Amino acid sequence: MLGIRLQRHGETTLARQIYQRLREQMTEGRLRPGEALPSTRELSRQLAISRNTACEAYEMLQVEGFIESRPGAPTRVADGLLLDKPVSTVERSEQATCPAPPLLVDFRTGQPDLRRFPVHLWLQLMRQAAEALPREQWGYTGPEGLPGLRQEIAAWLGRSRGLGADPQNIFITAGATQALHLIADLLSVEGREILVEDPCHNGMLHVLQARGCQIRPLPVDEQGLQTERLPGGGVGAGAGAVYVTPSHQFPLGGILPASRRAALVRHAREQDLYLLEDDYDSEFRYSGAPVAPLCLMDAQRVIYIGTFSKILFPALRIGYVVLPPQLHEQWRRLRTHADVQNPPFEQAALAEYLRTRKLDRHVQRMRRLYGQRRQLLLQALAENFGRAWRPWGDAAGLHLALEFPGWNFDRSFAESAREQGIRLAPVEYYSIRKGSHADKLLLGYGHLEAEEIREGIRLLHGFMQEKGHKV
Amino acid sequence: MLGIRLQRHGETTLARQIYQRLREQMTEGRLRPGEALPSTRELSRQLAISRNTACEAYEMLQVEGFIESRPGAPTRVADGLLLDKPVSTVERSEQATCPAPPLLVDFRTGQPDLRRFPVHLWLQLMRQAAEALPREQWGYTGPEGLPGLRQEIAAWLGRSRGLGADPQNIFITAGATQALHLIADLLSVEGREILVEDPCHNGMLHVLQARGCQIRPLPVDEQGLQTERLPGGGVGAGAGAVYVTPSHQFPLGGILPASRRAALVRHAREQDLYLLEDDYDSEFRYSGAPVAPLCLMDAQRVIYIGTFSKILFPALRIGYVVLPPQLHEQWRRLRTHADVQNPPFEQAALAEYLRTRKLDRHVQRMRRLYGQRRQLLLQALAENFGRAWRPWGDAAGLHLALEFPGWNFDRSFAESAREQGIRLAPVEYYSIRKGSHADKLLLGYGHLEAEEIREGIRLLHGFMQEKGHKV
Repeated sequence: MLGIRLQRHGETTLARQIYQRLREQMTEGRLRPGEALPSTRELSRQLAISRNTACEAYEMLQVEGFIESRPGAPTRVADGLLLDKPVSTVERSEQATCPAPPLLVDFRTGQPDLRRFPVHLWLQLMRQAAEALPREQWGYTGPEGLPGLRQEIAAWLGRSRGLGADPQNIFITAGATQALHLIADLLSVEGREILVEDPCHNGMLHVLQARGCQIRPLPVDEQGLQTERLPGGGVGAGAGAVYVTPSHQFPLGGILPASRRAALVRHAREQDLYLLEDDYDSEFRYSGAPVAPLCLMDAQRVIYIGTFSKILFPALRIGYVVLPPQLHEQWRRLRTHADVQNPPFEQAALAEYLRTRKLDRHVQRMRRLYGQRRQLLLQALAENFGRAWRPWGDAAGLHLALEFPGWNFDRSFAESAREQGIRLAPVEYYSIRKGSHADKLLLGYGHLEAEEIREGIRLLHGFMQEKGHKV
Repeated sequence: MLGIRLQRHGETTLARQIYQRLREQMTEGRLRPGEALPSTRELSRQLAISRNTACEAYEMLQVEGFIESRPGAPTRVADGLLLDKPVSTVERSEQATCPAPPLLVDFRTGQPDLRRFPVHLWLQLMRQAAEALPREQWGYTGPEGLPGLRQEIAAWLGRSRGLGADPQNIFITAGATQALHLIADLLSVEGREILVEDPCHNGMLHVLQARGCQIRPLPVDEQGLQTERLPGGGVGAGAGAVYVTPSHQFPLGGILPASRRAALVRHAREQDLYLLEDDYDSEFRYSGAPVAPLCLMDAQRVIYIGTFSKILFPALRIGYVVLPPQLHEQWRRLRTHADVQNPPFEQAALAEYLRTRKLDRHVQRMRRLYGQRRQLLLQALAENFGRAWRPWGDAAGLHLALEFPGWNFDRSFAESAREQGIRLAPVEYYSIRKGSHADKLLLGYGHLEAEEIREGIRLLHGFMQEKGHKV
């Protein structure tokens, strides 16, 4: 009579199935307001179910107000349930992807070598840290991050970069992206100008743009940001901040010289703005110690952004900021409203990884490995391309910027390389004002084995010869 | 001569100490532009250090552009290093807290009982899940969340709430707060009105306000949002969304009846707006199955927000949204720019916890326990307060709203209770328009043992008698 078909062996209980069929009939108007429903006894007979199941289904409908029952009267359909259109079925979002040809070599940037990460050691630490975690840390523990981790990061910044940061000024984030996302709100950049290096990391640029700020590009040369191009004007003349990568410019690789650093700090003081120092990979310098942070020159004007995505692994999602005290309170509020806090397990494991100096040793090991790979890359380039190229920037990081004078690397170049199985990025991808760096390519090498590098450069050389340019 | 004092047994290398002292002297003007520095041989003699250490210090200074050296000429201080003021020392942010008296009973809301969480089982699952995690999932895996977890959540929504969600529509978040934070951007609420229940969860309200939206309160009665108070007007008349807790209104506890649900869906269709359904604790219903989500009535108009903070533990930081397909692409972009993705370990462990139905059993166990505690609380209230009170809302969740007719529970009441060691919240804390619920208190009981509940109510009764009102 009610036209209900039940699935006897499904995951959904019979009571819920009955409830669902009946509520559909009510919102679609097939059962009408005031209409009497069969008694639970009658229903159980009709559907060959237990009386209990029928009662349970009616109870669900009653609690949610679909039906009304009074002692001694039949159960009736409630008023006002009709929906004007039937519920549209949710369409599956199809992705129209035509399959890309297989990758023969992947020169993408920012990829640490996950194959060399000591997974078992890490898992062991994570287990121990999780087991030792006091029960209250399974609850909410505040937007600053675990105190033990903040302390260990402070100690590590001291021994690796000479930065004497107070643990109280260190705030854990879910990675560097979140750090910048929150900083944008912290400095209310919306509608204001942010000065950024050009070229610059796209992802970070998008984070700032997504928060409504205006981007003002400043050119970069082999030494990094050209500070002589900083705009003049009095206090409050416009810009809200300057975003820089002084330890290893992304993507061109320059180390910002001391005189430019001093100029930048003087500028920040004159214009009353903050410097956003993104130190994304300076651990990996192959010809000496990591460069000292800009933050050392003025801890009141610089917000330092660090990450463990490149040192350990990207999915860790732990970064941090070193914040001047005047910004602490507002930061706590913003983080709380964004996503409350990081989970504790990874934090506790990382604190232990730092405390026992395992991180220092891992960085040392990887620095040696990445340095060898960089050498190999340079050698393969020399063997294949002779003198038709030169490297840019400092001997650091996980990628290399290469100049090929006379070439014009654009989107179509990268796309046809991809069709030949070669993934790479022209520097132009990262240029805000196009044209200044059209003759440069970026090759990420940190994640590639020796053989992959040699074969990759051979492929790249073959491809470029075929493109018929003057190699 | 250079006035450098070295710490021989510190964590900072001698080379870095020398580098730091020299760079300070340069930026402070004690060493002047063009001034010649001693040779490395001379420096090593002066400071009684090895020649290598001296070379290393000079190399750091040179790489960063503090000094310039040419073959056959002395090393000199570079130009442009002077900073106009000395770097101010970072002040420690002191918190002026006067110590609160010890807590005798803590009736705060939204606290699951962490003492009953199966920590060892969870850690075991997390270890297994982490060990089984394919290596590429230690890298970036996309803003949607792990596919296995999205599938398991879809299956669980089906068996626990009768919601047949497509896993493709489920997006993992770092908790419900982040879900709302991103939804606010997704719907561009800035400057637009959001209709919210009044009273309403403060935290969620602040998330919306922090994203620049205007709050328009709609009153709540014992059944939840009073939909007859929804504003009229044509399409685009103003509001961007309606935020509701239909399964268990926070804080008053009502279940939104079917006719009001239908009215809400009709309103959303007429006004072309989205309904934000926050289902924060409906697992814990003591008198029947969890209430069916509003989302079932119109999957195109409702964004469903779920969380595991109350079911498992808050520090897990995993929530999710069920999103209509037309919002997927923009969501991916927003999440990527906010914090990229969740870490994988907790996700993989949760997927396994769901797949093996351990979560279902945990919910069952906790529902029984919380139900007993609720009974105990009601009993203790009856014993102490006689008939001077009545409970509001459905038998569900981790807290209870209590009406004490004639009372006026305000901030000073809560503060003086706190001074007596009793933490509780007046409903007025959560009221946007003050005055409608001044006679109601909220007591969180989920995290309290039987004895704590009995003793807590005894203390509360004593305190209220002392306050001299008509109890």
